[in-house]
Amino acid sequence: MSGWLRVVGLGPGPDKWLTPEAHDVLHAATDIVGYIPYVERVPATARAKRHASDNRVELERAQQALQAAACGARVAVVSGGDAGVFGMAAALFEAMEKGDAAWRVLDVAVVPGMTALLAAAARVGAPLGHDFCVISLSDQRKPWSVIQLRLKAACEGDFVLAVYNPASSTRREQLEAALAQLRVARGADTVAVAATSVGCKDERVMVTTLGALDAAQVNMRTLLIIGSTKTRAVGRFVYTPRTYAEAL
Amino acid sequence: MSGWLRVVGLGPGPDKWLTPEAHDVLHAATDIVGYIPYVERVPATARAKRHASDNRVELERAQQALQAAACGARVAVVSGGDAGVFGMAAALFEAMEKGDAAWRVLDVAVVPGMTALLAAAARVGAPLGHDFCVISLSDQRKPWSVIQLRLKAACEGDFVLAVYNPASSTRREQLEAALAQLRVARGADTVAVAATSVGCKDERVMVTTLGALDAAQVNMRTLLIIGSTKTRAVGRFVYTPRTYAEAL
Repeated sequence: MSGWLRVVGLGPGPDKWLTPEAHDVLHAATDIVGYIPYVERVPATARAKRHASDNRVELERAQQALQAAACGARVAVVSGGDAGVFGMAAALFEAMEKGDAAWRVLDVAVVPGMTALLAAAARVGAPLGHDFCVISLSDQRKPWSVIQLRLKAACEGDFVLAVYNPASSTRREQLEAALAQLRVARGADTVAVAATSVGCKDERVMVTTLGALDAAQVNMRTLLIIGSTKTRAVGRFVYTPRTYAEAL
Repeated sequence: MSGWLRVVGLGPGPDKWLTPEAHDVLHAATDIVGYIPYVERVPATARAKRHASDNRVELERAQQALQAAACGARVAVVSGGDAGVFGMAAALFEAMEKGDAAWRVLDVAVVPGMTALLAAAARVGAPLGHDFCVISLSDQRKPWSVIQLRLKAACEGDFVLAVYNPASSTRREQLEAALAQLRVARGADTVAVAATSVGCKDERVMVTTLGALDAAQVNMRTLLIIGSTKTRAVGRFVYTPRTYAEAL
């Protein structure tokens, strides 16, 4: 029997956001590979063998999965949210590029998932109603200067800005520096949303402003949305209008 | 019985990408409101009364839906993909802002969906593996100068660029102008993906370069992904590496 590999996005947490396609793949797999909390999230009805590993071993995990598929296993590599957005998919193709040439002709595909950005935005209204940028604030894999330049470019284009990985328990300075940069470029009154653990029991969603946003409330499970100059409140909601009347 | 309103993203087309949450809301609604092709896509098992309307009447449709909810109906306003990304959600909040103050305290929520971007990206690998921008190329609701400035900003930040609404049957010049701008700013060898009708029977996905991309193959159901300077091919896939080593 010939193997396959699917990189599967599980969505932000609850089963209500797991797509039928992802559900079916998890139940057809012989092996499930991923970071511990994501493997734990796979429904108990999926009878595959589970291979959970720690964070920061994405490349090794991808190599293990490709090797297993090459040997005939049906492998689901699981990721939170969408595997293609700061998830396991890029690591998988990096491993493919660096590895055995035979891996390139395996039956490999990515199964899209609900990324946290869409779930967080929906919670507060329609902040992504117009053009937007998505950026990871982690400087583990890119120089801080690249992040600064991208924040600058996002402000110059007046894009709504969605920020993944804004901080961790040890990485705090970057968030303070980014918020300082954004407050100058975009103004303290700009709408800001801090959405933590969206869809999970400990969900906490705050609608505030860039000036009032408390960095201490932001952790590794937080997604930040910073409005454009047009983003505004209506009742308890925020939205970015479809129409952008003025030239920039 | 008190009414409610949900703005529901149906995903890019096939049922395999309709979330369980969206499925349940459609089956609990008394009324389904939306653009004709999206209303037609709601599963036949949903017994709600259907109110399909033509394109370009988003605001009127939103007003109708809010009014119905205010009168006690359980209304699902449907959108393709994710309702918050160039979909009906922003129109709904615009109608709320302009309308009866009582509409602001209705039971209203957005149900996130799989946006076409994620499905298109998954088809070709992991082009969104690093920071990216999302922009609509339609100049019906914003000046062309804003689009030009945003394309420029996206290139200065070396973001991967995802383009919604790249062209319609009558709106063709904008795409040619945008491609010309991007070829100069980013180089003709840059990876380009044109994904049309992803997940549907007439799906057509092309991986090419900015220089070779044939604008004639792009229509209103196409999503374009333009790579950053780092996006590259491995076998039949394309991906943007997680690591960005150099300063910009």
